[in-house]
Amino acid sequence: MFREKIKVLDCTIRDGGLINGHDFDIRFVREVYKALSEAGIDYMEIGYKNSKRLFSPKEYGKWKFCEDEDIKRVIDGIESKTKIAVMVDVDRVDVDDVLPRKDSPVAMIRVASYVKDIDKAIYLVNHFADKGYETTVNIMAISRALDNELTECLDQLEKECKAGVIYIVDSFGALYQETTEFLVKKAKSILKSKEVGMHAHNNQQLAFGNTIEAIIHNANYVDGTVYGLGRAAGNCPLELILGFLKNPKFDIRPVLDLISKEFITLREKMEWGYIIPYAITGILDEHPRAAMALRNSAKKENYREFYDSLVGEVEE
Amino acid sequence: MFREKIKVLDCTIRDGGLINGHDFDIRFVREVYKALSEAGIDYMEIGYKNSKRLFSPKEYGKWKFCEDEDIKRVIDGIESKTKIAVMVDVDRVDVDDVLPRKDSPVAMIRVASYVKDIDKAIYLVNHFADKGYETTVNIMAISRALDNELTECLDQLEKECKAGVIYIVDSFGALYQETTEFLVKKAKSILKSKEVGMHAHNNQQLAFGNTIEAIIHNANYVDGTVYGLGRAAGNCPLELILGFLKNPKFDIRPVLDLISKEFITLREKMEWGYIIPYAITGILDEHPRAAMALRNSAKKENYREFYDSLVGEVEE
Repeated sequence: MFREKIKVLDCTIRDGGLINGHDFDIRFVREVYKALSEAGIDYMEIGYKNSKRLFSPKEYGKWKFCEDEDIKRVIDGIESKTKIAVMVDVDRVDVDDVLPRKDSPVAMIRVASYVKDIDKAIYLVNHFADKGYETTVNIMAISRALDNELTECLDQLEKECKAGVIYIVDSFGALYQETTEFLVKKAKSILKSKEVGMHAHNNQQLAFGNTIEAIIHNANYVDGTVYGLGRAAGNCPLELILGFLKNPKFDIRPVLDLISKEFITLREKMEWGYIIPYAITGILDEHPRAAMALRNSAKKENYREFYDSLVGEVEE
Repeated sequence: MFREKIKVLDCTIRDGGLINGHDFDIRFVREVYKALSEAGIDYMEIGYKNSKRLFSPKEYGKWKFCEDEDIKRVIDGIESKTKIAVMVDVDRVDVDDVLPRKDSPVAMIRVASYVKDIDKAIYLVNHFADKGYETTVNIMAISRALDNELTECLDQLEKECKAGVIYIVDSFGALYQETTEFLVKKAKSILKSKEVGMHAHNNQQLAFGNTIEAIIHNANYVDGTVYGLGRAAGNCPLELILGFLKNPKFDIRPVLDLISKEFITLREKMEWGYIIPYAITGILDEHPRAAMALRNSAKKENYREFYDSLVGEVEE
């Protein structure tokens, strides 16, 4: 018996873009969109809506900006019920770049925010909601949030924010099931009028387990990426979510095909997944930044020294 | 606050041996034993104790037989509190090959058994227990066990069997947290005089999550393997267990070193881990046999056809 309210959002291109400067070509993104559409995925997040005044299009690929024209080149001619989502970071978007919903191929805008920036996130969400978009707030680095500050943040979201969904984002891949359970229950208890979502990172191979845990405790929005593609250790593999969910509208086959045809060769060019330095930052509840730098150095397999360098940074 | 009763068993060489015919050289196995000893691991399972009348030493490596003399070559001269374990399969061991505990380097014998073979397993365990060994029964393919038969099996183990630990073995990597919780609670409710253990496979990236779930519900024996090495998708990564457990006797560093120095190159020669055909057999609660055959064929990346071939085998 399936829970119809569960929605699956694929963020392969958006989170994967954090590895390659958001530089996926149109052909590849179309293949992803086509497969997700056939698989019955509810949303596809295609990138960030960043201001070109802050970032140069010469340095980054098109999915750092997500111009409506580029999105149209991806979706044109493909039959689909999959809605397009884009992500926005606090302080990096020019709200005037965003057309009203009725004039844009985008259906959903997700605002990523740390707890400390929640006022700015609420301002953005309400602006986009007024323009007609479905909206979410994605609370990043939630494993580092102090409980009283998180309570205040959730209270504020419930009272002041028009977002339909509030996401728990395990940015560092540091959560275990018990912490996931605690956070989802806490969010559900405060956010009476909203849905709760889960975005997991896979540093400790717990992205799928934590996503299931969130579903058990009534999170209804879950993020996945094809073959787990995503920054550093990557995300919850979409194919595993599809294997788990029982809603007959989902079909795992197009995603299996997509992995066969596109992602096995991609993995030879881009690095993500279960790699020990990312496991270490997950265990230590740290941003993977240092591990990503290590993987680009000659010491990439020197795990003990890396571990010691992180646990050595102890301050009173 | 840690739970002192939790014991960690490493089965890298035993389960990894299922990939390479148990043919690891003495130098490599010594490196593993040295690292596990420094890391504070409680047990190291080194292979199977199979009868040489049933399997030819010409066809298999030494860890399919685990002669005491070979074990001594591994452990001699290494300071260690790590106890040696071997595994035995029903109908494949010659009990007269096993010396009394006091004359052997082996401390623990684990008997792997399907539910249907539990009478044979009990006979073997009681024989080895009488010879002075610590013993366990590992109930394989438990995701396929019918509930009434599993109840009878557990009742019998509680009443007739001298094993100190009964393991839940997720042979197919098919369990989710909820099924793991159900099985561990069920086992704990019947096995009043014994400990419960968890041996997980990683087909759906749930080996670590399910191991944590088992610990939450009071399983005190957990299996891991270095870098997840093991048949097909492999097992619960030992390094993640060490990152999770809080007992100060454990040290993750020697295992990190071991992975750096030995397992990165090993992975280039042996295949294990998150590979889509193994995910598919896990999702479908099937033995990975067909997926292992696929990986040795020209169609190794043809996932959709493989999936269809398995779900097509429907019989009334």
